[in-house]
Amino acid sequence: MGFTLTEKVLKAHLVEGEMVKGQEIGIRIDQTLTQDSTGTMAYLQFEAMGIDQAKTKRSVAYIDHNMLQQGFENADDHKYIQTVTHKHGIYFSKPGNGICHQVHVERFGVPGQTLLGSDSHTPTGGGIGMIAIGAGGLDVAVAMGGGTYYITMPKVVNVELIGKLKSGVSAKDIILEVLRNLSVKGGVGKVIEYTGEGVKSLSVPERATITNMGAELGATTSVFPSDEVTHAFLKAQSREADFTPLTADQDAVYDEKLTINLDELEPLVALPHSPDNVKTVSEAAGVKVDQVAIGSCTNGSYLDLMKVAKILKGKTVHKDVSLVIAPGSKQVLTMLAANGALADLVAAGARILESGCGPCIGMGQAPATDAISLRTFNRNFKGRCGTTSAGVYLVSPETAAVSALTGVLTSPLTIEDIDLTIEMPETFVANDNMVIPPSTSPNEVEVVRGPNIKPFPLNKVLETCSGKVLIKVEDNITTDHIMPSNASLLPFRSNVPYLAKFCLTPCDESFPERAVENGGGIIVGGDNYGQGSSREHAALAPLQLGIRAVLTKSFARIHKANLINSGILPLVFVNPEDYHTIDVMDELDILDVKAKVETEDYLTVRNTTKGLDYNVKLEVSDRERQMLLLGGKINMIKEAQ
Amino acid sequence: MGFTLTEKVLKAHLVEGEMVKGQEIGIRIDQTLTQDSTGTMAYLQFEAMGIDQAKTKRSVAYIDHNMLQQGFENADDHKYIQTVTHKHGIYFSKPGNGICHQVHVERFGVPGQTLLGSDSHTPTGGGIGMIAIGAGGLDVAVAMGGGTYYITMPKVVNVELIGKLKSGVSAKDIILEVLRNLSVKGGVGKVIEYTGEGVKSLSVPERATITNMGAELGATTSVFPSDEVTHAFLKAQSREADFTPLTADQDAVYDEKLTINLDELEPLVALPHSPDNVKTVSEAAGVKVDQVAIGSCTNGSYLDLMKVAKILKGKTVHKDVSLVIAPGSKQVLTMLAANGALADLVAAGARILESGCGPCIGMGQAPATDAISLRTFNRNFKGRCGTTSAGVYLVSPETAAVSALTGVLTSPLTIEDIDLTIEMPETFVANDNMVIPPSTSPNEVEVVRGPNIKPFPLNKVLETCSGKVLIKVEDNITTDHIMPSNASLLPFRSNVPYLAKFCLTPCDESFPERAVENGGGIIVGGDNYGQGSSREHAALAPLQLGIRAVLTKSFARIHKANLINSGILPLVFVNPEDYHTIDVMDELDILDVKAKVETEDYLTVRNTTKGLDYNVKLEVSDRERQMLLLGGKINMIKEAQ
Repeated sequence: MGFTLTEKVLKAHLVEGEMVKGQEIGIRIDQTLTQDSTGTMAYLQFEAMGIDQAKTKRSVAYIDHNMLQQGFENADDHKYIQTVTHKHGIYFSKPGNGICHQVHVERFGVPGQTLLGSDSHTPTGGGIGMIAIGAGGLDVAVAMGGGTYYITMPKVVNVELIGKLKSGVSAKDIILEVLRNLSVKGGVGKVIEYTGEGVKSLSVPERATITNMGAELGATTSVFPSDEVTHAFLKAQSREADFTPLTADQDAVYDEKLTINLDELEPLVALPHSPDNVKTVSEAAGVKVDQVAIGSCTNGSYLDLMKVAKILKGKTVHKDVSLVIAPGSKQVLTMLAANGALADLVAAGARILESGCGPCIGMGQAPATDAISLRTFNRNFKGRCGTTSAGVYLVSPETAAVSALTGVLTSPLTIEDIDLTIEMPETFVANDNMVIPPSTSPNEVEVVRGPNIKPFPLNKVLETCSGKVLIKVEDNITTDHIMPSNASLLPFRSNVPYLAKFCLTPCDESFPERAVENGGGIIVGGDNYGQGSSREHAALAPLQLGIRAVLTKSFARIHKANLINSGILPLVFVNPEDYHTIDVMDELDILDVKAKVETEDYLTVRNTTKGLDYNVKLEVSDRERQMLLLGGKINMIKEAQ
Repeated sequence: MGFTLTEKVLKAHLVEGEMVKGQEIGIRIDQTLTQDSTGTMAYLQFEAMGIDQAKTKRSVAYIDHNMLQQGFENADDHKYIQTVTHKHGIYFSKPGNGICHQVHVERFGVPGQTLLGSDSHTPTGGGIGMIAIGAGGLDVAVAMGGGTYYITMPKVVNVELIGKLKSGVSAKDIILEVLRNLSVKGGVGKVIEYTGEGVKSLSVPERATITNMGAELGATTSVFPSDEVTHAFLKAQSREADFTPLTADQDAVYDEKLTINLDELEPLVALPHSPDNVKTVSEAAGVKVDQVAIGSCTNGSYLDLMKVAKILKGKTVHKDVSLVIAPGSKQVLTMLAANGALADLVAAGARILESGCGPCIGMGQAPATDAISLRTFNRNFKGRCGTTSAGVYLVSPETAAVSALTGVLTSPLTIEDIDLTIEMPETFVANDNMVIPPSTSPNEVEVVRGPNIKPFPLNKVLETCSGKVLIKVEDNITTDHIMPSNASLLPFRSNVPYLAKFCLTPCDESFPERAVENGGGIIVGGDNYGQGSSREHAALAPLQLGIRAVLTKSFARIHKANLINSGILPLVFVNPEDYHTIDVMDELDILDVKAKVETEDYLTVRNTTKGLDYNVKLEVSDRERQMLLLGGKINMIKEAQ
């Protein structure tokens, strides 16, 4: 029985465990990346681990999120990241050099290697044949220090691409078709592996569009083979030496299979407010459009923007449309500026934004009230664009460009007169002068910390665990409830004490104050507590407020891991009905907690206010028990040194 | 006795009064411009006047301030301005088309005409031989409606330019030299008129740099002759028909004279925190630089950025410097993109921002804590950049570019190997497809008002005037105290009820609440009350809060005019010592106010709490008395219809 590509790469990097699906395995990480909104915390944690130089083959810190810089906080964070990486053996990509995922594929990704990134769209690297996974900043910090990364051995889904895309249909439509089939939950616990004849007709940036937006399936990652197309791309990037061929065995066995016939694929659109709410563009055509936004780590490549330039050349953007374009990287922007395509875009009336995440993360360009915004991005959750009443439609660059001209959602199949064939350049402009290599004299580097950069909270060794119930929340609380993220709070990701003042305030404005007044305590939640993003700030802010345990009906997977990393006990009611017997300000005591956490799956929580005992479950691995006893992952790492 | 150029243009536009220096004259306005932060209010006021179509020769609404768009408020304002101008005969320049002053000189300015703009840098138009004046939004609205604009007949200062600039020294250094000589108060009540052989060697964009920053002298405006250089510029802009020659008479008599020898001029820099704190670059050289920002209405022209591109070509920005460049207009950006200069800038590591005001008004790119920022802009007031602890140095584009490479403040005279001669293009790219002309079917245009756009307050006919003293402030209170302006509040310039919640809060946080609780009342201030910017929001917010009179030791000129426009009584203590006898919450009553305002220069204010009577002065013209009696300028206009 042969191996899938996923299994081959994981096998080559296996450090702990066995490759049995559903079991925990530990893998070695070759490369890491961070962006600035999660990066400041990751490097503060790296510093706390006391490791001198990063031990990966390549670690890169990018600045792409907080680039509007409305206050000193952002520039201070940039300076901190620049100096801390310079000291510790990490490459620094200056603001303006581009979006982490786009630049990483262009300049650093290596087929067959593993990449761990503190951003959920890290799977973009799968386009170049990497096993590239998104994780919390602390996990990335540990990986930079040479530590093992633990995942559940995933199932592998085969998406076979047959046929060839017709003009006007593109990679974005392929991933929208996958989302239509599998849904936003369809990839959980799985890797999506692309095979078939159709793969050969897709360039590396097109493959990267597909693996990037695979994140919206909930997948661990997505991956393409490394083949002659990959070879040509790396050669054009002056990185031929980084090429390794890599494919699944002919007789590889997959857990699931989906076949997509590219010949038959139509331009698609994800309607508000979910990436899997997919229709054909012709079904939804005619909707009046107020804003069109092109770019992001999904569709900001040279290929994407050249197609847009071809469509816009010599024409004028509709008078009622604001068209914004953010090139994915400095490389893309330089090449468009040099070959005249940028002049065509500007002449047509496009607004050119900096190479960065920008509007995709709600950093600027919020649409008007009730506006319709067509975006080539990857997520269209309600309010993410900065305007709650706006409707965001996710489309390909071709659909976006054509619609910007007509002012209504329009299929690119209507412009048969324009040849959308773009030749991949034989040579990309490979100028890395905005990437600062690590210092050769690290001891001489002074790390600069602005006043917004505060020490992050560290837990203590577990002795006892008791306290008042400080808040009681409903089912399906997201990390956006626990630690709100918006244009006002994003600049404070290196300041947990400040962020903590907003912890759970969407549920109860008085929670942070009550937590401080009572010297910390316990959170009680319902089902699926902590769903949503991977942000570890949703565990660090409660830790800052003295939260010692979270008692729920059930947890979302990543948030539970983040709580454990912070040494906060994640406990689940054995009898969910017990939830109803607890009130805010009840005093809870977890009996004999230290001894129980060492070995037991079940613990007793005593409600001393009500005179009730609750049977609760602690579902963790032995490694996680150690973490909880020592007060979190950083303490465990220090202990091991 | 001959006329100055200023007198010639004013004479040709005189509607009321006599051209006697120091006396009020009324002039006809040919053109108006607005930007978005003052524009929403100007158009709301225009609508309130009930005039169907603008009566000027040309009125243009620009979007250049609120372009980051962190919330729906900005896009809503853009939509409102686009639709209200479309309905009422006004041209609309879409966001991305460029900075109002730069675009207006390129595409719309006409020598010998008058231009009134709701922005303090409107005098930029003097570079093309216009009498171009900055004013409050309501004055611009009145001018759009065909109304007369009133100013005090100014003195005229002659700045004679002799000799020729050497390479590396530029227009920015000329205006810095003028500022060094005259100071930031030196232009008050005056027009600065440039003459001499040196004028001929300056292109229109260079002249516009000088007239633009003439605003920092406190001058009414600055103006250059319209000559063969102007002719060539208009021809290159495909606007030859707009040319008229215009110069002062040989025997014109000036009130003051300053001669600048361009041969001897050195690169200059304005140190923190005032534009007249000028030194030579060589005196200040060597300061470590963290950020360099190039662009703005002062130095965002084709000529400016081509010089920067020449200096940066093939080099790399210093690793510790963030270089941001915002082209002044779409025309500039298109031409740089087409001729390869933009590719050179990006390749060197420059971050390209949108064509707009951006960092110059604190909209993004706030420097790091304690950072030094070199900027080609016009103002370096403390905190204006968004970072209170930062130091902003104002320099020429040449000095900025050279310093971005070295990482320290460096004189451009050190780069003798680079030829900085830039030929003015024979033809500029004249593509106005981001300018929407007024509708030919105005009745069919629906004006779109987002939820952030609130009706502005209107005063009532004056009957009585009494109330409690709601706040008592010290000397030199600025409009920044009265109506704070920053990145958080700028998006709310069309929402006076919201802004009013922040009125005078830098002096006393409880003032707005107290005003509401007491149903309005009276403000007591010291000397020079209301100094600073021209923003009429500093009168509208008090009006919103029910302020009926402001009683001070003295007023700043523009703020006093804005109070009168809003129907708020500006009263001055005859005996300044009376100030000390008043306390907050004293009850004041202005005796027989209606009859007194009609004819008397002196009124009596009775302090019923203290049992004291104060003799106060009302220094206003007959026109202003009418305005106060009717409750403000808009009521007066309606009354006249």
